[in-house]
Amino acid sequence: MSQKFRTEKDTLGEYPVPHDAWYGIQTARAVENFPISGRQPDADFIIAHARIKRAAAAVNQSAGALEPRLAQAIVEAADAIIAGQYQAEFVVDRFQAGAGTSHNMNTNEVIANLANVALGGKQGEYKPVNPNDHVNMGQSTNDTIPTAIRLAALAKMPRLLEAVNRMADEYEAIARNEAGTVKSGRTHLQDAVPTTLGREFGAYAWILRRSAHQLRATIPLLCETGLGGSAAGTGLNTVPGYAVHIAGELARLTGDPVRAADDLAAQMQSMHDLQQLSGAIRALALELTRISNDMRLLASGPRTGFAEIELPAVQPGSSIMPGKVNPVMFEMLNQVCYQVLGQDHAIAMMTQAGQLELNVMMPALGSALFDAMDWLTQAINAATVKGLHGLKVDRKRCRELAHTSVGLATLLNTSIGYAAAAEVAKESERSGRPVRDIVAEKGLMSTADFDRLVERAAIDGNITPPRR
Amino acid sequence: MSQKFRTEKDTLGEYPVPHDAWYGIQTARAVENFPISGRQPDADFIIAHARIKRAAAAVNQSAGALEPRLAQAIVEAADAIIAGQYQAEFVVDRFQAGAGTSHNMNTNEVIANLANVALGGKQGEYKPVNPNDHVNMGQSTNDTIPTAIRLAALAKMPRLLEAVNRMADEYEAIARNEAGTVKSGRTHLQDAVPTTLGREFGAYAWILRRSAHQLRATIPLLCETGLGGSAAGTGLNTVPGYAVHIAGELARLTGDPVRAADDLAAQMQSMHDLQQLSGAIRALALELTRISNDMRLLASGPRTGFAEIELPAVQPGSSIMPGKVNPVMFEMLNQVCYQVLGQDHAIAMMTQAGQLELNVMMPALGSALFDAMDWLTQAINAATVKGLHGLKVDRKRCRELAHTSVGLATLLNTSIGYAAAAEVAKESERSGRPVRDIVAEKGLMSTADFDRLVERAAIDGNITPPRR
Amino acid sequence: MSQKFRTEKDTLGEYPVPHDAWYGIQTARAVENFPISGRQPDADFIIAHARIKRAAAAVNQSAGALEPRLAQAIVEAADAIIAGQYQAEFVVDRFQAGAGTSHNMNTNEVIANLANVALGGKQGEYKPVNPNDHVNMGQSTNDTIPTAIRLAALAKMPRLLEAVNRMADEYEAIARNEAGTVKSGRTHLQDAVPTTLGREFGAYAWILRRSAHQLRATIPLLCETGLGGSAAGTGLNTVPGYAVHIAGELARLTGDPVRAADDLAAQMQSMHDLQQLSGAIRALALELTRISNDMRLLASGPRTGFAEIELPAVQPGSSIMPGKVNPVMFEMLNQVCYQVLGQDHAIAMMTQAGQLELNVMMPALGSALFDAMDWLTQAINAATVKGLHGLKVDRKRCRELAHTSVGLATLLNTSIGYAAAAEVAKESERSGRPVRDIVAEKGLMSTADFDRLVERAAIDGNITPPRR
Amino acid sequence: MSQKFRTEKDTLGEYPVPHDAWYGIQTARAVENFPISGRQPDADFIIAHARIKRAAAAVNQSAGALEPRLAQAIVEAADAIIAGQYQAEFVVDRFQAGAGTSHNMNTNEVIANLANVALGGKQGEYKPVNPNDHVNMGQSTNDTIPTAIRLAALAKMPRLLEAVNRMADEYEAIARNEAGTVKSGRTHLQDAVPTTLGREFGAYAWILRRSAHQLRATIPLLCETGLGGSAAGTGLNTVPGYAVHIAGELARLTGDPVRAADDLAAQMQSMHDLQQLSGAIRALALELTRISNDMRLLASGPRTGFAEIELPAVQPGSSIMPGKVNPVMFEMLNQVCYQVLGQDHAIAMMTQAGQLELNVMMPALGSALFDAMDWLTQAINAATVKGLHGLKVDRKRCRELAHTSVGLATLLNTSIGYAAAAEVAKESERSGRPVRDIVAEKGLMSTADFDRLVERAAIDGNITPPRR
Repeated sequence: MSQKFRTEKDTLGEYPVPHDAWYGIQTARAVENFPISGRQPDADFIIAHARIKRAAAAVNQSAGALEPRLAQAIVEAADAIIAGQYQAEFVVDRFQAGAGTSHNMNTNEVIANLANVALGGKQGEYKPVNPNDHVNMGQSTNDTIPTAIRLAALAKMPRLLEAVNRMADEYEAIARNEAGTVKSGRTHLQDAVPTTLGREFGAYAWILRRSAHQLRATIPLLCETGLGGSAAGTGLNTVPGYAVHIAGELARLTGDPVRAADDLAAQMQSMHDLQQLSGAIRALALELTRISNDMRLLASGPRTGFAEIELPAVQPGSSIMPGKVNPVMFEMLNQVCYQVLGQDHAIAMMTQAGQLELNVMMPALGSALFDAMDWLTQAINAATVKGLHGLKVDRKRCRELAHTSVGLATLLNTSIGYAAAAEVAKESERSGRPVRDIVAEKGLMSTADFDRLVERAAIDGNITPPRR
Repeated sequence: MSQKFRTEKDTLGEYPVPHDAWYGIQTARAVENFPISGRQPDADFIIAHARIKRAAAAVNQSAGALEPRLAQAIVEAADAIIAGQYQAEFVVDRFQAGAGTSHNMNTNEVIANLANVALGGKQGEYKPVNPNDHVNMGQSTNDTIPTAIRLAALAKMPRLLEAVNRMADEYEAIARNEAGTVKSGRTHLQDAVPTTLGREFGAYAWILRRSAHQLRATIPLLCETGLGGSAAGTGLNTVPGYAVHIAGELARLTGDPVRAADDLAAQMQSMHDLQQLSGAIRALALELTRISNDMRLLASGPRTGFAEIELPAVQPGSSIMPGKVNPVMFEMLNQVCYQVLGQDHAIAMMTQAGQLELNVMMPALGSALFDAMDWLTQAINAATVKGLHGLKVDRKRCRELAHTSVGLATLLNTSIGYAAAAEVAKESERSGRPVRDIVAEKGLMSTADFDRLVERAAIDGNITPPRR
Repeated sequence: MSQKFRTEKDTLGEYPVPHDAWYGIQTARAVENFPISGRQPDADFIIAHARIKRAAAAVNQSAGALEPRLAQAIVEAADAIIAGQYQAEFVVDRFQAGAGTSHNMNTNEVIANLANVALGGKQGEYKPVNPNDHVNMGQSTNDTIPTAIRLAALAKMPRLLEAVNRMADEYEAIARNEAGTVKSGRTHLQDAVPTTLGREFGAYAWILRRSAHQLRATIPLLCETGLGGSAAGTGLNTVPGYAVHIAGELARLTGDPVRAADDLAAQMQSMHDLQQLSGAIRALALELTRISNDMRLLASGPRTGFAEIELPAVQPGSSIMPGKVNPVMFEMLNQVCYQVLGQDHAIAMMTQAGQLELNVMMPALGSALFDAMDWLTQAINAATVKGLHGLKVDRKRCRELAHTSVGLATLLNTSIGYAAAAEVAKESERSGRPVRDIVAEKGLMSTADFDRLVERAAIDGNITPPRR
Repeated sequence: MSQKFRTEKDTLGEYPVPHDAWYGIQTARAVENFPISGRQPDADFIIAHARIKRAAAAVNQSAGALEPRLAQAIVEAADAIIAGQYQAEFVVDRFQAGAGTSHNMNTNEVIANLANVALGGKQGEYKPVNPNDHVNMGQSTNDTIPTAIRLAALAKMPRLLEAVNRMADEYEAIARNEAGTVKSGRTHLQDAVPTTLGREFGAYAWILRRSAHQLRATIPLLCETGLGGSAAGTGLNTVPGYAVHIAGELARLTGDPVRAADDLAAQMQSMHDLQQLSGAIRALALELTRISNDMRLLASGPRTGFAEIELPAVQPGSSIMPGKVNPVMFEMLNQVCYQVLGQDHAIAMMTQAGQLELNVMMPALGSALFDAMDWLTQAINAATVKGLHGLKVDRKRCRELAHTSVGLATLLNTSIGYAAAAEVAKESERSGRPVRDIVAEKGLMSTADFDRLVERAAIDGNITPPRR
């Protein structure tokens, strides 16, 4: 390879850096040290981290600790990154040095080089702007990385919430349309009492809204930053008022109500807030798993299954079975949910692995969280647009099954008691005849009256059939 | 065995029941069907379920659906159970019929028999009070069991919260005492900048308070009951206004702000609220794991470890190594936390296993949750009383280590820059001489001034050493 | 409470012990220290640990390190415990001192007291037999506890294997009976090509056998003991040849091919073998989860589900829905499997928590493992006897569904190609007419020929329909 | 975008395909349907799947079912893919249609287009080679995808094994060098009896070898393929002898002892073998977590920690603390292990999610497995080369700590008994004086004799100090 290199020097000695790289020696060392997954950092995370650098420069300048000329150059360099430029310069693997020192230095170096060139200097010379002394002033990997993870999660949150709510909207729309679609309830997967498809899908919507609510409840937690703790939560080397001022700067830059945490040491030693977020994502993924399973079950068939709904055909279902249409969008959603549960598991392991002043597992924790949020967002959106939207309900099939359910005997409880009703149910099951016929035969009710009762019981919900 | 039996009959036929049992045939069948763990139901759960039976009888009586004489007998029988009597009559294994039908019938049968005997009837005859038609009136396993799990969790919650807060109190008390105990911070387990033991332990207290807060935030969720949904969330066979009235009754009986859920079907198909609670317990267990690990690390020694704290000796540490004192209380807490994480894992699996109108995994889900709450409560209390209380801090050792830390070079950053400070650090590490001596030798500061700076940096937190 | 106490003394001082307890002061301290779950140790574990004490006494006697009179008394005391006596004397909670020091001392003390009384001494005086110097001679908590966990697991193994194989036998018996029961395959829960119920259930049997095989493969691992490592895997204070001799003794006592591990330090620092066992249990639980889910799905109905099989009714299914029969045995098995996955999760957490020479999480690890094995054994047995045995197959329903499946179009692939076959499938789905009719209409085959082809394809497996 | 498109048609209708794409309409639909993670399929998996296509063509040709001209073209197209070409044509997201239909069709389409062009046809016209009828002949997604996952795992296995063994080699090399390095054992993180660094590191090596052995034990399982089961494990549409012949072909192509599974239906409905592999990977990851934690603990310091070893400095440790050197390689390994545990968790969830004839979670299951294997391989290699190799042992520090350990009192057990030895230990701890001095003072042994005894005890392991 004919790539050209410049030589840089750090506290360990000299090391080659690609001659046109905006990053520097510590980044280059990290690239060599960590050839693990080949995956670059998350885009929102890169931006969030640059925002912190920008905010720190502003605060340090105001406090008179950083020369305005340097501060301004740092701000402009950070702004370019925040605008989405130079993403390719962030080259350290997602699995890297504990706590994210390598990514922090990558950002420090890129900003320093950009700032220096803007000020007439050269890449790799770090004058007048030094990555450690100026870009990283008053900061540490240990307070910038967890804050950047929080900010990146906050950036992803609206997308995830929108996806969840959109799916809930879709379920609600179907629920409204199918409020009168009588169908058999199933408990233990066995024939149960009548309900409506509207009620079923309405409950899905309700749970999704609740899950979104729980996700949203983590936002205030994510807004509490430990910035200002610097190396060990003590605030060493920070200017007076730094924690409060930088939080204010970030609030301004992000639009989120970022604020300084009450206990900077706690925010550094513990990942509890991110764990809380992962827990809320897990809760959502568990519900989506269940709901997707239900969708696939309700769509089972067309001849050998429940076949109460028909999912849109978005692609041929099988390479060998012609004409097969599979519930691919919900299968995909199931798979994503399982992987999201895997991410959550990894995050829990990393949460408990903090030691004393610091949790060094942050880079991988952040990465696991980002993937979970992004993939789930995309998967929910795809399932909503291609799986839910356009779904057809087979109302005739629903109603037919409802009226044959052995569970209808329950409607007789209040009039003839559980034990006698059980005899009707058993007679129905034994003979294969519908409950309505046995009811009529026993002179309890006409078949027409019974059918009407079933419909009312399904729709009105807590109607009380006549008691004796 | 000379045990005598009576014969009872249900919809499946005849079956023997121990002649003096207050439970009946369905319970007896379940005992035979489920000889799994040998573990009886949770005590709070038994009581919570009886409370629901009591409340239902009252509501059904008010609505005119249940004869006052029967209702009153049911209420009195339930009250005996609520008072803690007859726990030995609840004999169905924790692993049992899906959704908890067996436990529901166990309660129905015990109450029916107690009520009937009180009304002059006989055990096993179910007249005038029938377990299904009267005790279970307007109810289903499917709405009473998840509600009983919620109520039992609410009963356990104050004990858990008290345990967490008591541990936080203890950490705070130590933190106050040791606010001036200078010690070395450690990040990546490596020498870092100075901090205080007060700050470390204060952060533990803070995190525990936060965890308690998150637990408490699940209380309103747990108070939303799906009672009134009956078999499939539709409310079939319930009297008008039942859902609201029974919630009111339970609020009165428990003192918790119990209310009817907005969507009864959702509460039956989904375990999302219990999952939320388990998530909060998990978050606490992960933090306790971390904190216990830290305690054991700080207490490592006495000669070959960190030895900054000394835990109270509550028992000889070793069967072979004389005089050994081990951190047994925190080891126990670690073990309990790991098992609690296992319970949480089981709960997550069971949460996703709901199908259509019902989640049949509820009995085991409830059991896993109850154990998690009880064991964690007990373990935290024991660790607080026997592990934290009486803990001694070796202030001399803390201070000595703080002043030898290579991380002290960080104090030079703002005056001589990161690169020059790194030379000091490396010189210290190479030679084994303390940073203070090299600082003095280089004429940067007297050793006494440097020592004072270290102390101030540790205690004041964000002091800013002089910049050039 | 009027309980009487004697006073004992250990290296920490005096402490009261119930006057008639066979255990002693360290056990009494542990009872006070660890009031966590209220659960006593596993019975197999108590016995296994006593076996080690017995074996050690024999080896130490042979080596001349332990006086024959004392050794013999120890052996006899241990034999009583091994025979199942004195289980009530093992009173330390399952969550206890790290590594199990408390349980080790409980055993040492019970044996010492029994031995001393047999030798004419008194409870609580520890003469001539001392719990540490004689009963624990050459041993440590650190090598006896992990070995006792292994031996207890070995004791449980045959019961678990028998349960799995019995279930496999039952599936095989059904598979043989139903080798000719044509039914529709379902992939993605959608109509697929014809198969037989025999093939489906035969595959369940096959997987269960394979799972049993994997479990059995851990036996040699469990037989490698670290006994002889004593406190830290170095063998300090053991007599020459101890590791080999005690393994031989245990092999004789247990009938298992116990042998001394190649690396005693490895066996103490790592729980890898028990993790391997837990992994095999997990694999089994995952398959049982899947199979139980399938059973409940195939039994869904009777009117609104698949209804291809009917599970035996072992109890009334519902407290509210009369005549309902639920798949309770497989629901129970599902729940147990989920809890077993929770146990496995706890075990994994505990496995990774070893530090340097020792893993102190052993008591809880053992407990989690024992419960997993016992509960799973019981659950499989119950599901086999009450859920599988007596299961009825609805052959008519199976065959009917098979012949209406849209997936039958696949039989046309080799004669008319995938694309043309897809048109047939779509025509069938659109019109609701069976594939056979469209095939006949298109002149491809008579309906009778097609029906015969379907049956042959189901049963023979890889028949190849004619190619053009 | 000015990209040009051609129009293709499938059973659902027309759809645009990039005009120069080697893939076709079903792939294009899948790209639109699944915009989830943006991650392409695993490279080994692409190749493994192509191998199956190649092998199938050969077998079908031999059986006379596939025209030699077409078979040959398919073989050549597959060979190009196997050689690593056309990877960019595999464009379906890792989260996709259940069972992997989309990836299967992607391969079928690429091969068909390549073959047709080679035979003089045009991209997108599928003549004379049809993706379903010819490339997919006798196959299904349902048997090719699980087999391709197995083959890809087999391809990755030697790399992972080599990495593990290389790390074990390195630990063994250190263990040999440090066989005489006396150090204090630590149990419960407390001073214990003397051991050697060689013994500690030797145990790490031993465990790694054992873990490699367990991994290797899964190879025969992975070699059992369900190919020939086609759509539902029945073998429909396969030529006689297909299962055996294609296994033979694949054995020839891969060099692995691939063979036809005994039960083709079992291999399709169950992921048990891949679960077994994931379990072995988990076991390795748990051990590596523990070992990495130990390495970071032993390297803690330089002044405030254990400091028994010094890890090579591969990059500056901190952005703020100058001169800091962190154990970054093991921190990275810890993080990778935690994510691998997350992958394993996802795989377990997916394993239990099979239903009836098929497990549709395979694409994500495969992906999770591939990442786990690749990332772990890379991480182990990096940690070995940059973290272990070049590690320095501070023998002086080790020995000093060993001789000050309070645990040395254990050496007195056999001569003066546990209780008297405990007095020595307590006296040492109280006074801060070394055990040797108290021993000498009590006239038990000279300090020199005691020191020699300590050294012997550490190195020889099971020396028995003199008994009285």
